[in-house]
Amino acid sequence: MNFTSIQNIDFLDKWVKQALKIKKKPLKNKKLGKNKTLVMLFFNSSLRTRLSTQKAAINLGMNVMVMNFGSEGWTLEYEDGAIMNQGASEHIKEAAAVVSQYADIIAIRAFAGLTDKEKDNAETVLSGFLKHATVPIVNMESATGHPLQSLADAITMAEHKTQHRPKVVLTWAPHPRALPQAVPNSFVEMMQLQDADFVITHPEGYELNPKITKDSKIEYDQDKAFENADFIYAKNWSNYKEYGQITNSDPNWTVTADKMKLTNNAKFMHCLPVRRNVIVTDEVIDSENSIVIEQANNRTYAAQVVLQKILKNGK
Amino acid sequence: MNFTSIQNIDFLDKWVKQALKIKKKPLKNKKLGKNKTLVMLFFNSSLRTRLSTQKAAINLGMNVMVMNFGSEGWTLEYEDGAIMNQGASEHIKEAAAVVSQYADIIAIRAFAGLTDKEKDNAETVLSGFLKHATVPIVNMESATGHPLQSLADAITMAEHKTQHRPKVVLTWAPHPRALPQAVPNSFVEMMQLQDADFVITHPEGYELNPKITKDSKIEYDQDKAFENADFIYAKNWSNYKEYGQITNSDPNWTVTADKMKLTNNAKFMHCLPVRRNVIVTDEVIDSENSIVIEQANNRTYAAQVVLQKILKNGK
Amino acid sequence: MNFTSIQNIDFLDKWVKQALKIKKKPLKNKKLGKNKTLVMLFFNSSLRTRLSTQKAAINLGMNVMVMNFGSEGWTLEYEDGAIMNQGASEHIKEAAAVVSQYADIIAIRAFAGLTDKEKDNAETVLSGFLKHATVPIVNMESATGHPLQSLADAITMAEHKTQHRPKVVLTWAPHPRALPQAVPNSFVEMMQLQDADFVITHPEGYELNPKITKDSKIEYDQDKAFENADFIYAKNWSNYKEYGQITNSDPNWTVTADKMKLTNNAKFMHCLPVRRNVIVTDEVIDSENSIVIEQANNRTYAAQVVLQKILKNGK
Repeated sequence: MNFTSIQNIDFLDKWVKQALKIKKKPLKNKKLGKNKTLVMLFFNSSLRTRLSTQKAAINLGMNVMVMNFGSEGWTLEYEDGAIMNQGASEHIKEAAAVVSQYADIIAIRAFAGLTDKEKDNAETVLSGFLKHATVPIVNMESATGHPLQSLADAITMAEHKTQHRPKVVLTWAPHPRALPQAVPNSFVEMMQLQDADFVITHPEGYELNPKITKDSKIEYDQDKAFENADFIYAKNWSNYKEYGQITNSDPNWTVTADKMKLTNNAKFMHCLPVRRNVIVTDEVIDSENSIVIEQANNRTYAAQVVLQKILKNGK
Repeated sequence: MNFTSIQNIDFLDKWVKQALKIKKKPLKNKKLGKNKTLVMLFFNSSLRTRLSTQKAAINLGMNVMVMNFGSEGWTLEYEDGAIMNQGASEHIKEAAAVVSQYADIIAIRAFAGLTDKEKDNAETVLSGFLKHATVPIVNMESATGHPLQSLADAITMAEHKTQHRPKVVLTWAPHPRALPQAVPNSFVEMMQLQDADFVITHPEGYELNPKITKDSKIEYDQDKAFENADFIYAKNWSNYKEYGQITNSDPNWTVTADKMKLTNNAKFMHCLPVRRNVIVTDEVIDSENSIVIEQANNRTYAAQVVLQKILKNGK
Repeated sequence: MNFTSIQNIDFLDKWVKQALKIKKKPLKNKKLGKNKTLVMLFFNSSLRTRLSTQKAAINLGMNVMVMNFGSEGWTLEYEDGAIMNQGASEHIKEAAAVVSQYADIIAIRAFAGLTDKEKDNAETVLSGFLKHATVPIVNMESATGHPLQSLADAITMAEHKTQHRPKVVLTWAPHPRALPQAVPNSFVEMMQLQDADFVITHPEGYELNPKITKDSKIEYDQDKAFENADFIYAKNWSNYKEYGQITNSDPNWTVTADKMKLTNNAKFMHCLPVRRNVIVTDEVIDSENSIVIEQANNRTYAAQVVLQKILKNGK
C-alpha cells in the first residue's frame, strides 16, 4: 500500500483511534520495523515533517536514511522520451527503481512549483515515484496534498472535540509569500470524511480546486463563517485560478481575538510554520485555545500509524 | 538541567574525572540513552562538534536526528510581538516547542553574527530555545560561549598536567577572518574554576568582555606571558570593543618554536580548525608537545559526560 | 586495510563470490559492525553511493555518521607548509586525524576537478586522508577511480554471464557536461583482473590514461567493437589528453538498438545516473537486456563485502 493522499485512508475513524493508541505507547511496535529501512527524499526544506517522520520510523525500530536532493543530489527528469542533454542528470525511471532497492519504504517531499498549474496537478515527482518505485511510497507533502498533516489534524480534533458534530472552519489568511494549496486541499478532503459542519471561508477568487472542494460549503464572509465554530483552522494559500499569484493580502482576514469571540470558544489550529501577526495575532495563538503545538506533536503519531500499516500490510 | 555555559558545571574536577572514566569505557552506559532522542540543530557549519556530539549520543545508545537550518530549513524570528511579514517564516516560540516534542535533548549551534554586539550578547537563538523548549538544551557553540570545547580542554589538561598548579596561557593569534569570542570566553570561565596560574595575553585593545574575564590576569607582552608556561592555548578572536572588527593582524603574535622555548616545555593547545603558519607554525603544531588532536578526541567524552548527566538527572 | 583502488582487491573472483553470498543473506553479519562507526565524508553530491554504502553499513550493524563538506563544512588545505591565510580553514593533517578518532572506518567521495590534471592524478583529497587518517579509508569515488562501482559491476557480470570468457566492451558515449574518468578507469582495472575478451572503444583522442589502460585493447570503430559482445558498458568521460575538455559530442556514439544488434545479444550496463537518449536510447535501456538497475542494487553488496573485510581484518 501507498500513502499519497487522504483517499488512501479506508476508515478515518479507525486510523485516528489507532494513532491515539500509538500515542499512549509509541514504542509498543518497536520490533515491527526491525531491519526495515525508510528512505526520506527531500526536494524541499522541512522541519516538522523531517523530524516527526524520522521519529515515527525510529519508534517502530526502522533504520532511516535521509537524502536532500537540493544540497546533496541533482535534478531529475520526469518526461518520457526526453533527450536528456539539459540540466537533469537522471531520469525518474532509474532514480525510483534504484532507491527502491535500498529502501523498504520511500517517503518524498516535493512542493508545488506554483508556476505551471497542469504540471503541479499532475504531481510530477510523486507520480513518477509511484509509477517507477517498487516499494510503498509515503507523501511528505506533494504539489497538491499533505495527507500526513491532515491525518495529524484529524487526530488533534478527535482529542479536542466536545461534541459529536463540531463546526469546523478552514479560513484563508494573508501571507507575504505565495504558498501551495497542498495543506488546505488535504484538510478539505479529510473533513469530507468526517461528520462535521464544515465551512471554507476565503476572499472571492481564492477558491481551491473545485474537484477537491466538491460540495463543501464556501462562505465568503469570514465573520459569518466563524459564528459558533468549534475549530478555526487558519491557512494561507495562493490563488488557484490565477495560479500561484497573490491577488489579495487584506489584513482583515488575519485571525484576531475579536474574530475568535464570534466562535463557540473555538480551538485555533494551524499546520505551522505560521507567520505571527499576519496569519494570526499573538493573542490568539498564545491563548489556551490554541492547539497548534499539539497538532505538530501528532505528526509523529500520524506518520507512525501510516508506517505501521505499510509495514504490516506490505506492498 | 541544561548545559549552555561553563556556569552549569557544579564541580569541574568531578566532571573531568567522570569524563576520563567514560573515556576508558565509552560504551558502559549504552543502555542509559535507549529510546531517547537527541535532536541536533545546526545554524552554522560544524565538523568536530557535529561528529563528536553524535558519537557521544551513539555511545550512550541514543537516537540522533540532525537538522541543518542553513540548507534544510528556514529563518526563525526571535522577537516577541513581531509582525512576521518579512524573511522569517517561523517564530522561535513554535520552533522550540515543536522540536521539544520530538526530542529528549536538543543541542544547538548558532554562532555570533559579529555585527550587533547587543544581540550577540543576548544569545538570541540559545536564549530563545532555553525559554521556549520543554526539554534540556545543550550548547554546541553559541554567540558567546563554547562550553563543550572548554570542558574537553579541561579534560585534556588534566591528562597532561605534570604539576598541581600549572601555568596556563591563553594567547591571541592573528587570523584572516573575523572570529567570535565564544571559545576564549568559555576557556576563561573554565580556567576561573581551576587552581592554576592563568594568564591571558593579547594586543592592547583586544580585551575580551570584562564581565567574563573579571579579575583574570592580562599581560600584553606575549613573551613575558609565555615565560614558564605549562600550557599555551592559542586562539584568535575579533575585537570585542570595536565589535567584530579585525584591528590587528600582527604576525609577531603567531606561536612559533622560538616563543615556545620561553615556556616550561609547554603543551600546545588549540580548539581547531587552525590556520597553520598563521595562528601557529608547523614546527609547533607538529611537535610532540602539541595536544590538539587529543583535545578534539576529548570532545566526545566532554559531550558524553554532559549527555549522561542530563539523561540521569532529567529535566 | 584500505579500499581505495581496484588494486586493493587480492582475488576478484573470491570477492565476487562473497558478495553474492552476502546478497542472499545480507543481515547474516549484523553483529560484526556492532558499536563500530562509519563516517561518510562527501565533498561531492551522491545518491546511489550515499544510500548503498549507508545501507551496507546498516546491514552490518554499524553506526553511520554523514558529513557533507559542501553544505555543512568547510574547505580543506592539502599542501604541506602552506601559510593558511586564504580560503581553506583547516589542514587535512588535523581533519583526517580528528575524524579518525570518531570513526572506525572513513569513507570519502571527492571528484576530479578536471582543471588540473596533475592535481587530480595526485588524488589530493584521498591521498591526504590515506596519509593522515589512522583508520581504514574507503573510496566512494575519487578523482581517478570508483572501485566500489567496478566491484558492483563485476558482481553483476558474474550474475549475468553465460560463458566462461565473455566479450566485454567499454564504450564511450557523448554527454553534455565534462565528466571525470574515475568510472572507466576502475572498470578497466577491474576487467584486467578478469578472464575476458575486453575491448575499449572511443573516438580517437579520447584515450584514457595509458598507465591505466596498459595493453588493454582499444578499437576506434564502435561497430567493430560491438561485434559479438556479451556486455556493453557505456560511459562518457571527458578528454584525458586535452584534460577535462569536451572535444567530441558526436551523437553517432550513442548506444542504439541498431548497434546492440551487432552484439551477441549483449547485456547493457551503465553506472548511472545516465542521460537517456544521449548516452543510450530509451529502447536499449528499457529493454530486457538492460541490467543497470541490478548494477545499482549490487552497490550495496560491493560496499558490504568491502566493509566486512575491513571489519574482520582491522587496520
